[in-house]
Amino acid sequence: MATAGKVIKCKAAVAWEAGKPLSIEEVEVAPPQAMEVRVKILFTSLCHTDVYFWEAKGQTPMFPRIFGHEAGGIVESVGEGVTDLSPGDHVLPVFTGECKECPHCKSAESNMCDLLRINTDRGVMIGDGKSRFSINGKPIYHFVGTSTFSEYTVMHVGCVAKINPKAPLDKVCVLSCGISTGLGATINVARPPKGSTVAIFGLGAVGLAAAEGARIAGASRIIGVDLNANRFEEARKFGCTEFVNPKDHDKPVQQVLAEMTNGGVDRSVECTGNINAMIQAFECVHDGWGVAVLVGVPHKDAEFKTHPMNFLNERTLKGTFFGNYKPRTDLPNVVELYMKKELEVEKFITHSVPFSEINTAFDLMHKGEGIRCIIRMEN
Amino acid sequence: MATAGKVIKCKAAVAWEAGKPLSIEEVEVAPPQAMEVRVKILFTSLCHTDVYFWEAKGQTPMFPRIFGHEAGGIVESVGEGVTDLSPGDHVLPVFTGECKECPHCKSAESNMCDLLRINTDRGVMIGDGKSRFSINGKPIYHFVGTSTFSEYTVMHVGCVAKINPKAPLDKVCVLSCGISTGLGATINVARPPKGSTVAIFGLGAVGLAAAEGARIAGASRIIGVDLNANRFEEARKFGCTEFVNPKDHDKPVQQVLAEMTNGGVDRSVECTGNINAMIQAFECVHDGWGVAVLVGVPHKDAEFKTHPMNFLNERTLKGTFFGNYKPRTDLPNVVELYMKKELEVEKFITHSVPFSEINTAFDLMHKGEGIRCIIRMEN
Repeated sequence: MATAGKVIKCKAAVAWEAGKPLSIEEVEVAPPQAMEVRVKILFTSLCHTDVYFWEAKGQTPMFPRIFGHEAGGIVESVGEGVTDLSPGDHVLPVFTGECKECPHCKSAESNMCDLLRINTDRGVMIGDGKSRFSINGKPIYHFVGTSTFSEYTVMHVGCVAKINPKAPLDKVCVLSCGISTGLGATINVARPPKGSTVAIFGLGAVGLAAAEGARIAGASRIIGVDLNANRFEEARKFGCTEFVNPKDHDKPVQQVLAEMTNGGVDRSVECTGNINAMIQAFECVHDGWGVAVLVGVPHKDAEFKTHPMNFLNERTLKGTFFGNYKPRTDLPNVVELYMKKELEVEKFITHSVPFSEINTAFDLMHKGEGIRCIIRMEN
Repeated sequence: MATAGKVIKCKAAVAWEAGKPLSIEEVEVAPPQAMEVRVKILFTSLCHTDVYFWEAKGQTPMFPRIFGHEAGGIVESVGEGVTDLSPGDHVLPVFTGECKECPHCKSAESNMCDLLRINTDRGVMIGDGKSRFSINGKPIYHFVGTSTFSEYTVMHVGCVAKINPKAPLDKVCVLSCGISTGLGATINVARPPKGSTVAIFGLGAVGLAAAEGARIAGASRIIGVDLNANRFEEARKFGCTEFVNPKDHDKPVQQVLAEMTNGGVDRSVECTGNINAMIQAFECVHDGWGVAVLVGVPHKDAEFKTHPMNFLNERTLKGTFFGNYKPRTDLPNVVELYMKKELEVEKFITHSVPFSEINTAFDLMHKGEGIRCIIRMEN
């Protein structure tokens, strides 16, 4: 490649200040160093986590910064020591990594890599503590090791999943974060048996993906729980068969669900991060075999409280991170699930804008409109 | 059998009042009714649950009553409709049952039978609401459907496990409650991988059985946690390799264990019922893959509290009841585990008394001496 080993000048959407619209700038992207790859991003999408750190309310502010972590692209060049990726490979960047060498990567049960686990406070590459982005020599911070709101970005090889080159990147780009998180929470962690009843708390993108997971697993009843009644119609497309709006009931939602299901649901998946919903999601599962899975990230001062007899009666509570998928090992298989038409990705994509209109994606998310907005880097 | 269909007069240890020594009396034991069996008890042992309900501090008092639920015996006669047990069968009575027809019994995951789940407030047979025990026509209450402190007792067929007749009843009688509870909590629920590290909270009979389960499963480190240092030496026999007495540390025990194990134990089993120990047992497991199992029964006002991030970091918390063993289906296999010399039952049996000295067993338990005291019905 003509660009390998050289600085690339390209367009990136830079966040100069918390909460201010992104500005498309020409940035310089340094070549990948040891164990790094430089990727040409073709499609990216916006996830709540980008917005959360861009707003920087209560978070450590780190600006100027290039956000973005749901994306699909093609490897442009690789740094020293990279053996399992080559220029031309189709890849999904992932906000958390898989070094394949630490105890977590070696455990069949964990995906919480010691080296490359998500770190929202680090704005530089892990190898040398420096940024690969700059404008007129001034460094621009990275975000969660991906920074996909740029035509080119540099990532640690452990944060890049190589996928089937036949997979359309404008569709599968959404699998690199939220959709896989919800899907995996159900398929990998809750594991509903065929014919079972599953409750999904929160019908945003992650919750709808959790419902999609329950549909794929063959659950026969999928009960969506959300305070926003507008989401119910959309949720039917993702397999939801019934809906409960806690606002419509005087009783605790645990009791409403128990009455609907002869004692409790078989599985529940909590995708809001609200502590009350977490407790409800746990207490609504059936004794003897019920499993509740927590996905939504709680407030730092939240406290989970329940009577311990709820556990003693043979209920299980588990949490998950990125749907328990190991980024490099498992994400290619999620893409294959789409290629086999088991997983329906298209219905998650409700909007699409050119890179120049990236701020429109932020507006849509603020208004709660749609599920995922694809940002096309090359119009 | 000459006695079938007739009332049997025999000796039983009757609790006339809360907390008062049992008195050996001649009782009349009515023949088994539909779906019931009458069993000649040969050996029984004393468990904390007997003592707890005999003391009746805060429990519904129900006297006069015949306690006892850990035992081994031989079927004397069977009532109408009983097809899978016959006179002469060797059996273990169980305080909770398996009807084989309810959703719990049909679920592979649950042992909490809807019909015969433990009920400490019911002092009569479930079939007709009457007692089968009487003295001079005055009924004596049953206890948890077993009442094994009697030479003969009547039980629902669903509370009786048929076992290998070659198994010595004076040993395997202890498998009908506490030992199986701890053993199953580890083997069936915590499921420690070979070579893993397991923490056991509480080194009483159930905790030692949980340690024995970890030993059988091939755990390489078994860390006993107890406030009573006297228990540590004994615990070595059950596989404990290390000990932590929370009193010896200023730091929370979670932190002590995390430091000993490079981030946390792989599995923990909580056998005290103390709410603080429950929280510690959960928080001490490793992120990514740790599983904590609650066995000990908590105070009714207890509240389990933790930061939900402890779940989100891929920890699992489960409760278990009777080690998740289905009484009739699984208990015969626990007996086989002993017959194959994998499970060592003898070391749990520290004392033995004739039936006439049953109150000595209560004294030993009060003093915290020994693990299990066998009560020999026929000296």
